[in-house]
Amino acid sequence: MPHRKAEVQWQIPFHDLDPMEVVWHGNYARYFEYARTALLQSFDYDYPQMRESGYAWPVIDLAVRYVRPLVYQQRIVIRATLMEWEHRLKINYEIRDAQSGERLTRGHTVQVAVKLPQMSMCFVSPAILFDKLGVPVPCDAA
Amino acid sequence: MPHRKAEVQWQIPFHDLDPMEVVWHGNYARYFEYARTALLQSFDYDYPQMRESGYAWPVIDLAVRYVRPLVYQQRIVIRATLMEWEHRLKINYEIRDAQSGERLTRGHTVQVAVKLPQMSMCFVSPAILFDKLGVPVPCDAA
Amino acid sequence: MPHRKAEVQWQIPFHDLDPMEVVWHGNYARYFEYARTALLQSFDYDYPQMRESGYAWPVIDLAVRYVRPLVYQQRIVIRATLMEWEHRLKINYEIRDAQSGERLTRGHTVQVAVKLPQMSMCFVSPAILFDKLGVPVPCDAA
Amino acid sequence: MPHRKAEVQWQIPFHDLDPMEVVWHGNYARYFEYARTALLQSFDYDYPQMRESGYAWPVIDLAVRYVRPLVYQQRIVIRATLMEWEHRLKINYEIRDAQSGERLTRGHTVQVAVKLPQMSMCFVSPAILFDKLGVPVPCDAA
Repeated sequence: MPHRKAEVQWQIPFHDLDPMEVVWHGNYARYFEYARTALLQSFDYDYPQMRESGYAWPVIDLAVRYVRPLVYQQRIVIRATLMEWEHRLKINYEIRDAQSGERLTRGHTVQVAVKLPQMSMCFVSPAILFDKLGVPVPCDAA
Repeated sequence: MPHRKAEVQWQIPFHDLDPMEVVWHGNYARYFEYARTALLQSFDYDYPQMRESGYAWPVIDLAVRYVRPLVYQQRIVIRATLMEWEHRLKINYEIRDAQSGERLTRGHTVQVAVKLPQMSMCFVSPAILFDKLGVPVPCDAA
Repeated sequence: MPHRKAEVQWQIPFHDLDPMEVVWHGNYARYFEYARTALLQSFDYDYPQMRESGYAWPVIDLAVRYVRPLVYQQRIVIRATLMEWEHRLKINYEIRDAQSGERLTRGHTVQVAVKLPQMSMCFVSPAILFDKLGVPVPCDAA
Repeated sequence: MPHRKAEVQWQIPFHDLDPMEVVWHGNYARYFEYARTALLQSFDYDYPQMRESGYAWPVIDLAVRYVRPLVYQQRIVIRATLMEWEHRLKINYEIRDAQSGERLTRGHTVQVAVKLPQMSMCFVSPAILFDKLGVPVPCDAA
């Protein structure tokens, strides 16, 4: 399966800026989520479908590498790329300037399946994820 | 120099929760900042002193490892520990349950000095940081 | 019944500031919530107890009057005062400087009871609220 | 002068939801700002132009009336309408469902001009605002 990708556009609003007049570093988790949602929706397995399938997928790992600051009204493209899915959902992120294409930020999140309602962690992704992705379900899928 | 530490207490408010009734993962950057501020103030080099000294210290790296979710009104202790300072400020974070002491979250941030107003990055921390920390200034300090 | 009150202390963090180096106006809703939670807990009817009682209490009205800006590391006191409860929960807020006592902000929220799970709005507060407040239940209570 | 208006579209993201699975009431200030920015840009007097003109325009009043909750992935239209400008900037807001057109939220903000850097409040709007709006400058303009 080729790596699935999704992109969203965003323009930096005033309320995301800090006194240094750049986006405060903690706001990038929201930006990543905009692109992650688009990616998950591209294979019909976003938050409502996750819940309906009997699983939550909490983020267990977040990393952000800030290459260049983001400034007021800058137009950016946030790209999310699905890197791993067999045992966990690993998604890479890249933020680029919409005009110049310059790379401004990199990062990733890792999510794992948790069986609802007992909240037990799955060490192999559940079959529903493979179905949604259109890839064969491994023997040991939850 | 022994590792400098600072701790703050926090209690989880309603507006930090998501529909899964746990703290939304992006809010932890705020929690880390509460402890980082206390740590930087402990050696009198918080945001106003940084600015006055002619340097900004943007966060260039953030990592969060979510071990256990945080729930409504849970009392937590957020600890920040200064790990590196010679070339960059690396701070580790640990969130524990205030009652049980159970570790709930780990993470770190990395900041680098940027000379104001030209915004040029320093590859060695400026002398002011060593002064504030009460450690000898290396020959190559900015 | 005398007006019930609750107060919390808060110190302005970096991430609540905007480029004008004052707290961005939208963050005050969080500050009000810190005091409202303390007020609701003082009569044991905070979010978990509301839910358990079969009612949600969404905020239907918010007003904030910004008298003076709030600045970095300023210590403030946020006071919430219960003004009405018979047909709706109206709470007034006041933010003062912790040292000088100067009034910096005023505001209010209005919440109404909504019967779960059908989400029907109550035009009279439910009996549980009067019980919690220790006041007589009116004949027409929900 | 006819009332100036601007509209922006928005889709409700996961991180704006609270445990009741509706948008937490404090997030609407961000939504209003998306539309206010579009409105101010329509007459070339947004935050950077304000600052350059020697004035800050802090929000001194915010009101939100929540008619209907906003839910995950709902598409909304946020409209900002300029109501007053002679002594203060009063902007009204209306949020509607993008599909049905049903009105979901109403509100307003009031901003006043503050002369930089002394931060003295203007009781009449400065001439620059009238210029930008293309209306005659009153005799008593700042």
